[in-house]
Amino acid sequence: MNRPRLPDSTFWVEPEAVGPRHIRLGEEESHHLIRVHRAITGTPFQATDGRGGFFECVLESIEPRGAVGRIVERREGWGELSRAIELLVGRPDWAAAEKVVEHGVPLGAGAFDFVVCERRGREGPGAARLARLDRVARAGLKQSRRSRLPRILSSPSIQEAVRAHGPGQRFMADPDGSPFASSLAESPQLPVQLAIGPPGDFTAEEREFLRGEDFAPISLGPSRLTTETAAIALLSLIRNSLLRSKL
Amino acid sequence: MNRPRLPDSTFWVEPEAVGPRHIRLGEEESHHLIRVHRAITGTPFQATDGRGGFFECVLESIEPRGAVGRIVERREGWGELSRAIELLVGRPDWAAAEKVVEHGVPLGAGAFDFVVCERRGREGPGAARLARLDRVARAGLKQSRRSRLPRILSSPSIQEAVRAHGPGQRFMADPDGSPFASSLAESPQLPVQLAIGPPGDFTAEEREFLRGEDFAPISLGPSRLTTETAAIALLSLIRNSLLRSKL
Repeated sequence: MNRPRLPDSTFWVEPEAVGPRHIRLGEEESHHLIRVHRAITGTPFQATDGRGGFFECVLESIEPRGAVGRIVERREGWGELSRAIELLVGRPDWAAAEKVVEHGVPLGAGAFDFVVCERRGREGPGAARLARLDRVARAGLKQSRRSRLPRILSSPSIQEAVRAHGPGQRFMADPDGSPFASSLAESPQLPVQLAIGPPGDFTAEEREFLRGEDFAPISLGPSRLTTETAAIALLSLIRNSLLRSKL
Repeated sequence: MNRPRLPDSTFWVEPEAVGPRHIRLGEEESHHLIRVHRAITGTPFQATDGRGGFFECVLESIEPRGAVGRIVERREGWGELSRAIELLVGRPDWAAAEKVVEHGVPLGAGAFDFVVCERRGREGPGAARLARLDRVARAGLKQSRRSRLPRILSSPSIQEAVRAHGPGQRFMADPDGSPFASSLAESPQLPVQLAIGPPGDFTAEEREFLRGEDFAPISLGPSRLTTETAAIALLSLIRNSLLRSKL
């Protein structure tokens, strides 16, 4: 006899479907819980609303409008880092942008801005592209058991991007910089902002602008990295540094 | 009139085609240089033999057996880190293994061992798989301007893998560990070895074995990472640490 498999991934619940004691999954997630995982009344599962809410639940009832879970425990900010990390990534092609989101969400990124830069200048994403990147982000959030869905946007220039994100502790990938060695304990109230050039890298003017805006140049080493590999590598360093500063 | 574009990527040259003053590209690379980049006599280009040789060349002649470049400068170990990094990665599916190679080569990995582990036990790769991973590695080497082609292998167990690789300074991805904070200046003569569990992670026995073999447990943070994201994140930390220890 096959026993129901405990779902290994977190379920998505819309914030307005979270009550004080119960949550109600939407159609697709209900289907996944009940048909794919064959959950029955009493099966435990986990859900997140993408706004920091993370819920340990047991399946209480299966209603036509969706599966209802009783909240056993709330874990606010589950799987999240102590500070937000905002990525300003010079827009690569969309396959590369998806890789940045795919690896960047589990590594704790709080926002992805795919910035239209001078080199390899391309248009920003249309609604369909943004929707697809958002789906990749949701899948990554559920798989990695985080609880805050990152924002995904596309600024029309690096100047606009820096303005839009506001103050932060700032770093940029730059071959002329030094290896990462900073302490992140200094400004705990600010988000960390990372700038990574597009394929072909930032122009001299863009780099000049970023240095003037206090983006500290970080060298990622002697070989040449693609935009997506550089973004993941720099994010990994910041993540580890945040983990250390909490100790 | 279109002028020949300076090739942006390094060309591959077989080690036996490297002479004291000249190199001879193979058929495919010659085609790429002459047809795709429309190089003419006197066009500068770069080539690597994948064994640490990196050559600044100018195209001297186009012969039926291949393009011949005159070596202007040799840069031994170009794009390489100060120490070898060996990745022991619990074998994920092949799409994930390709991602590990795709991002891991530019980040400086010197060997990839896709280890058959207890969980998600699968067969090792056949010859066709290894050939495909090797192609991904070569493309990454050329794109990132490194000069040593990483080895790609698949050990039948984690015990075999550790035995095969010999001594090293050892770290493993482990949720029960601490953030990475080691100095890598201690044992400069040894390679750095990184163990990352397969999907579903190492079993308690495998972890026990690795700890007994002095793999220091490193926590990569509060969210759950896939095998490929964990491998890239841990490699990024080690890379940065090697860059710092050289200062």
